Amino acid sequence: MADRIEPRTLKGFRDYLPEAMIPRERLIETAKRVYRSYGFSPIDTPALEYLEILTGKGSEETDKQLYKFQDHGDRWVGLRFDLTVPLARFAAQHINVLGTPWKRYHIAAVWRGENTQAGRFREFMQCDFDTIGTLSPAADIETVLVINDLFTALGFDDFTIRLNNRLLLNGLLEKLDLADRSVPVLRALDKLAKIGAEKVAEEMATTAGATSEQSAAVLKLAGLAGSNDDVLRQVAPLVEGSPKGQEGLQKLRDMLAAAAAAGVPERRLKLDVSIARGLDYYTGVIYETFLNALPKIGSVCSGGRYDNLAGLYTKQELPGVGASLGLDRLLEAMNQLNLIEKVSTPAPVFCVYFVESRLHDYLKLAARVRAAGIGCELFPEAKKIGKQLQYADRRGFRVALVAGDDELAAGNVQIKNLQSGESTAVSLSGDALESTLASILNPTP
Amino acid sequence: MADRIEPRTLKGFRDYLPEAMIPRERLIETAKRVYRSYGFSPIDTPALEYLEILTGKGSEETDKQLYKFQDHGDRWVGLRFDLTVPLARFAAQHINVLGTPWKRYHIAAVWRGENTQAGRFREFMQCDFDTIGTLSPAADIETVLVINDLFTALGFDDFTIRLNNRLLLNGLLEKLDLADRSVPVLRALDKLAKIGAEKVAEEMATTAGATSEQSAAVLKLAGLAGSNDDVLRQVAPLVEGSPKGQEGLQKLRDMLAAAAAAGVPERRLKLDVSIARGLDYYTGVIYETFLNALPKIGSVCSGGRYDNLAGLYTKQELPGVGASLGLDRLLEAMNQLNLIEKVSTPAPVFCVYFVESRLHDYLKLAARVRAAGIGCELFPEAKKIGKQLQYADRRGFRVALVAGDDELAAGNVQIKNLQSGESTAVSLSGDALESTLASILNPTP
Repeated sequence: MADRIEPRTLKGFRDYLPEAMIPRERLIETAKRVYRSYGFSPIDTPALEYLEILTGKGSEETDKQLYKFQDHGDRWVGLRFDLTVPLARFAAQHINVLGTPWKRYHIAAVWRGENTQAGRFREFMQCDFDTIGTLSPAADIETVLVINDLFTALGFDDFTIRLNNRLLLNGLLEKLDLADRSVPVLRALDKLAKIGAEKVAEEMATTAGATSEQSAAVLKLAGLAGSNDDVLRQVAPLVEGSPKGQEGLQKLRDMLAAAAAAGVPERRLKLDVSIARGLDYYTGVIYETFLNALPKIGSVCSGGRYDNLAGLYTKQELPGVGASLGLDRLLEAMNQLNLIEKVSTPAPVFCVYFVESRLHDYLKLAARVRAAGIGCELFPEAKKIGKQLQYADRRGFRVALVAGDDELAAGNVQIKNLQSGESTAVSLSGDALESTLASILNPTP
Repeated sequence: MADRIEPRTLKGFRDYLPEAMIPRERLIETAKRVYRSYGFSPIDTPALEYLEILTGKGSEETDKQLYKFQDHGDRWVGLRFDLTVPLARFAAQHINVLGTPWKRYHIAAVWRGENTQAGRFREFMQCDFDTIGTLSPAADIETVLVINDLFTALGFDDFTIRLNNRLLLNGLLEKLDLADRSVPVLRALDKLAKIGAEKVAEEMATTAGATSEQSAAVLKLAGLAGSNDDVLRQVAPLVEGSPKGQEGLQKLRDMLAAAAAAGVPERRLKLDVSIARGLDYYTGVIYETFLNALPKIGSVCSGGRYDNLAGLYTKQELPGVGASLGLDRLLEAMNQLNLIEKVSTPAPVFCVYFVESRLHDYLKLAARVRAAGIGCELFPEAKKIGKQLQYADRRGFRVALVAGDDELAAGNVQIKNLQSGESTAVSLSGDALESTLASILNPTP
């Protein structure tokens, strides 16, 4: 072959080798298990959509990052850049069949032609769950329970779900007669951590015509800190007289009480009136989730309540609440915290192919281990045992089965614990094989 | 909103609603479980590849069907049209890190701008597993075991794995001095079912210069039928004197013996010397899998052995063997055979939200059911019980939990079997709740 093509991936795209893919699949399976346990059902939508569907909703930035082209029928099409726009289109199209309330999860790839300098990728997974078509606070509360169960199921204990409710700020703005200028106020407030209170007040004066008293009140709300009780106590006078603000306050109180009743440890919930994600999108409760060991990587699961999911595609109002697990960020965190086993095999047991003529015996042995629900790989070639064990070590198998002519003739097999190096001979009659493997793989503490 | 956008999907693309997606996810999870149990590990590759990678390998037809365009950096890119080309590119790029033998599975979407008239879709899933970098017959045999385990795990009993080995025909052609004309001979032979033996012989004469004796011998081999023993007996004289043909015959014999030793029921394996899929690609064993209740839908799992996976991208020779599960075809078959439960909830238990002020009790109740490993959805609104049970029915929940003020005060809950209509009151103390649910959901036969 004269003209060989260089094997390479596009800039901003990546292959997942087994060592990266195994923990990724585990994480996704855990998320699915938790979502399903609450009755969220899976959906999928096409990677490609009519371009008008996609450009209808995103920001200028996402429009610029869209992968778009003309297909074989000269239709303008684009690759989805998130799962929210497809959800809106899907809900508008199918809600009459689906009925409400409707709970779905969607775990799928999305594409953005982003600048890759910041270590960002142009293809990544999103992992969303939402409850559509109900205004009930029970759905808001349940979202907290899902997040709590999800991180617990992933093996985390020390994490914090930060809660806010947009009604607090909206109520305050109402009280301050700034309700019609909430967008510039929020835009300024969003820069608080970056530019400081003084500059934010200046911007509010310029873009929203806020007086210094008005901006001071807004900054006071955003700056409240302390225990949940402290924050609730300090918020109360700020929203007094505003029905909207009172409602937000009551909803946060109810959420804390309900989550505690449902078993979420109190230390995991933290009111934080400074969070204001999704400037124009969220209208009620807002969630962010932080790993206390790694707060700097940012929120690993975020979401909130919105009023009208699919207004661009249907006149039917579809309020909802949901959140999205930040898969890549979480995997990166788990890597940093050494929570990810470095293996490139999904099967724990390795069967050495020792004596070439004994293939049938090894096939039977491996099939027997699998029948006990334990993954078992048989090496395909009767190579030297050292080479085979090297292969097994490199891939992270935990146990090797070794049986030569003598062992097989005597009805035995050696079980070698690849972590400790210990070997035990067990008989192939009875269930010694299965029970020994089980005790090595799932030791009772 | 004046300019509403019509919510619709592109022609040839489809949304998966929960009722379609739930069995789809189950099927994929079963396939993963079986692949993993043999030590196949997962990988993933980007949806988008450099166009030269994709056009390097496919046929003229796949080139025409490619979704291709220029990205933001003016690179020509395309959406992958199968998982074999990405596997070849991936293996060429990473095999030094991965080492051989290397076993991978890959379950992902592919895209082809096909004519949609034949009910074909432009986006569909492939579900492949392969063992790369070994010539060992043990890997060929294992592929049969994987297919057998896979369909057994999916609940099938009556299916047939059809086996052939390309060495038989190659050996015969060698004997007939037609080895250098195998491509036109195969191309003609491939039309046997369509145009009949006479026309095939004519074509072989025209395109391969085959004499009538030569084409008769080829047609004789392709026409052999009967039990596995019959076929083996009849093939033997046809390939006598050809080392290649003898090798193919021996490999089929060994495969049948080894599969039987490993526990595959004999009735499931059928030698079929007429199958010749992948004209130029497969070089050894070939597999096709048929559901005996629905043979007409064609093979639902096909594959074979190939000599050189990645010759376009590397000088390293990478032989391999593998197969691909026909996910959509199989789901269609399972639908026709009524093997798919029509539900749109992944959780079996529904908790009625009966008394508004009792939210904490219901949250606790649902959390308790989930903690027992049983999915439980709590309705988010305290609507009329009839409405809630209608919702539960429509979605296919199996059990409803109903508790009003009196029940809760007495520490009881009603467990309503939604299939039989029966209700039982159980106490919330002890484990009556969990054990009653378990006995309804998993009745012992």
